[in-house]
Amino acid sequence: MSQTFPSLADIKAAHARIKPFIHRTPILSSTAINEIAGCEIFFKCENFQKVGAFKARGAANAVVKLTEEQKSKGVATHSSGNHAAALARAASVAGIPSYIVMPSNAPEIKKKAVKGYGGEIIECEPNLKARETTLEAVVAKTGATFIPPYDFMDVIEGQATCVLELLEDQPNLDIIMAPVGGGGLLGGTALTTHYLSPKTEVIAGEPAGADDAFQSFQAGKIIPQSRPNTIADGLLTSLGVLNFELIQNYVADILLATDPQIIEAMRLIYERMKIVIEPSCAVPLAALLANQDRFAGKKVGIILSGGNVDLGKLPF
Amino acid sequence: MSQTFPSLADIKAAHARIKPFIHRTPILSSTAINEIAGCEIFFKCENFQKVGAFKARGAANAVVKLTEEQKSKGVATHSSGNHAAALARAASVAGIPSYIVMPSNAPEIKKKAVKGYGGEIIECEPNLKARETTLEAVVAKTGATFIPPYDFMDVIEGQATCVLELLEDQPNLDIIMAPVGGGGLLGGTALTTHYLSPKTEVIAGEPAGADDAFQSFQAGKIIPQSRPNTIADGLLTSLGVLNFELIQNYVADILLATDPQIIEAMRLIYERMKIVIEPSCAVPLAALLANQDRFAGKKVGIILSGGNVDLGKLPF
Repeated sequence: MSQTFPSLADIKAAHARIKPFIHRTPILSSTAINEIAGCEIFFKCENFQKVGAFKARGAANAVVKLTEEQKSKGVATHSSGNHAAALARAASVAGIPSYIVMPSNAPEIKKKAVKGYGGEIIECEPNLKARETTLEAVVAKTGATFIPPYDFMDVIEGQATCVLELLEDQPNLDIIMAPVGGGGLLGGTALTTHYLSPKTEVIAGEPAGADDAFQSFQAGKIIPQSRPNTIADGLLTSLGVLNFELIQNYVADILLATDPQIIEAMRLIYERMKIVIEPSCAVPLAALLANQDRFAGKKVGIILSGGNVDLGKLPF
Repeated sequence: MSQTFPSLADIKAAHARIKPFIHRTPILSSTAINEIAGCEIFFKCENFQKVGAFKARGAANAVVKLTEEQKSKGVATHSSGNHAAALARAASVAGIPSYIVMPSNAPEIKKKAVKGYGGEIIECEPNLKARETTLEAVVAKTGATFIPPYDFMDVIEGQATCVLELLEDQPNLDIIMAPVGGGGLLGGTALTTHYLSPKTEVIAGEPAGADDAFQSFQAGKIIPQSRPNTIADGLLTSLGVLNFELIQNYVADILLATDPQIIEAMRLIYERMKIVIEPSCAVPLAALLANQDRFAGKKVGIILSGGNVDLGKLPF
C-alpha cells in the first residue's frame, strides 16, 4: 500500500468520536425479498442516518478531528449532493461555519437541506472547473478547511464505521455489498471488513451507465468517468485515488446494474420493506438480482446508502 | 356496555396466540417532526407489519380462533383493501382456503396481493349490495366462515394487541392516536388503553371528507358515511356498531384533517422518517398538526396503520 490507511483502532476511535452525532441505524430483512433473491439479505439502513445518508459519518469525523484553530475558520466543500448537507450539519453541530459551493442548477430540495442545517451556499456555474475555482476563492477568503466528499482519509475513516456496526450486529456474513461512486463508502467498507472479517467478500454495485469503477478495476488504473447516464444520481463521480487503492486491495468484484434493474430493485424495497431510498441506494440489490447465481444461499449484508429522493420524481 | 368486550386477559391471550404470525413492529421517532409538531411523538410502525398493515393482527386472531370444523371449510370476506390481503395470508398460514369477494374495479395491486397469499378472488359489481349478496352465495356454497373487516369481536381483539406492544415499549404516554374508518383499530386501541393506562387520552384522526365517526361521536348515534371524498382510501367505510360503542365509552375526541393536511403529513413522514405509508396512515399526524395547541409538550403515541400505497400515484 502506498498510503497509510486507518488501522482498525483508528476506525474504532472514529466510531466512538462520531457516536454522539450519528444514529446507530437498524438492520432490516424482508422474507419476500429473500425469496426473490434466493439468499439471506441484511440491509443496513443508512437511509435512516442523520441527513438521510451514510455521508453523515465521514463529515462528522472530519469536522470533529479539526484543530480548534481550524474550527474557528469553518469548513468548505463543493457538492450538490448528500455530502453538502452532511458537512453543513456536522459544522452546525460543532458550532462552526460551513461554506458550500453548489452549482446554480442544483435541485431546490438540496439547497434547502444545506440552508436548513445552517450552511452558507455559494453558487457557481454548473461545471467542475467553476466549482473548483469558486471553492478555491472561498477558502482563500475565509481560511476554511476544505473537506472533500470522498478522496480524503478522515472521510473514508468515517464511512468505514458503518460496516463496523453491521458486522457487530450481524457477524458471519459471506458477502457485503455497497454502491460505488467516488468510492468513500466502498473503500471504508472494504477496509473494515478486511480487518474484522477477512473471509467476507466485499462486492460493489455500480450503475452500468456510470461504470468507471468497474472499468478502472478491470484495467488496474483509474479510468475517469465521462458522460455518466444513469438514474443513480449519487454515483456519477469518478473514483478517488485513495479509494481506488482500497478497492484494488480489498474488493472482490464490481457488478453492474442497468437503470431498469435499478428501478426494479428500488421498487422492491419500497413495496416490500416500506422504506424510502434514493435510486443510488438500490444499486447493490439490483446488481445482486442481476447475478443471482453468485449469491445463492449466501448471507449477504447490503448497505442502503441513503434516502434523499425527490418524491415528485420517483421512477414508478 | 351492551356487549361483552374482550378483557385485558383476552387481549393478552390474543397477543400470545397471534405472536408467531405477526411482527412486533418498531417504534420510531423523528427529531425534525417533533420540532415541527411541538410535542414528542412515538410512531408505532404497523406499515412494517405483515401484509403491510395492522389488519394482519385481527385477521390472524380470527382465523386461529376458529374450530377445526370451521377451519376445514375456510374463511370468506368482502373487501378491496388490507383486510382482504390480511385474511388471505392468515388463512394461507393456517393452511385453509380463503374466498375474497372483491369489486371488479379493485386495483390490480390489491388483487395481486390477495392472489399472492393464495386467496381465491370472486369478483362482483362494485357496490355494497353486490358484495353482500356475492359473499352470501360464496358462504352458502363453501360453508366458509365470514370474517368481517372490523365490526367483529375477534377482529377487534386482534387489533387491540397493537397498543399493547406500544404501551409496553413506551409507557406514560399522554395521548394515543389512531385513524378511524370502520373503527376496528380505534376501538381495540381505546379498549386496551382503558385497561392499561386509563390516564392516557385516546384521540382519533379522521379525514374531513369521510367524517362519519366525528358526526356519530357528536350526535351520540351512528350516522352512516355517505359519499366519502378523500385521498385516505382506507377510511371510507361507516363505523361499525361494536366499534362505536367502544368509541363512545373510551375515546376522548375525534379530530378532522383535510386532504391537503393529510398529504402534507404524509410527505413529512416520507421525507423526514424515510418510510412508506399509505394516505390513511397519515391522518392522525395531520389531525395533530391541525390542532397543535392541544398536543403542546405532550408525549403522543401514533399508530401508523399501513404502508400499502400505489407508488405510481403518490400525491406529491
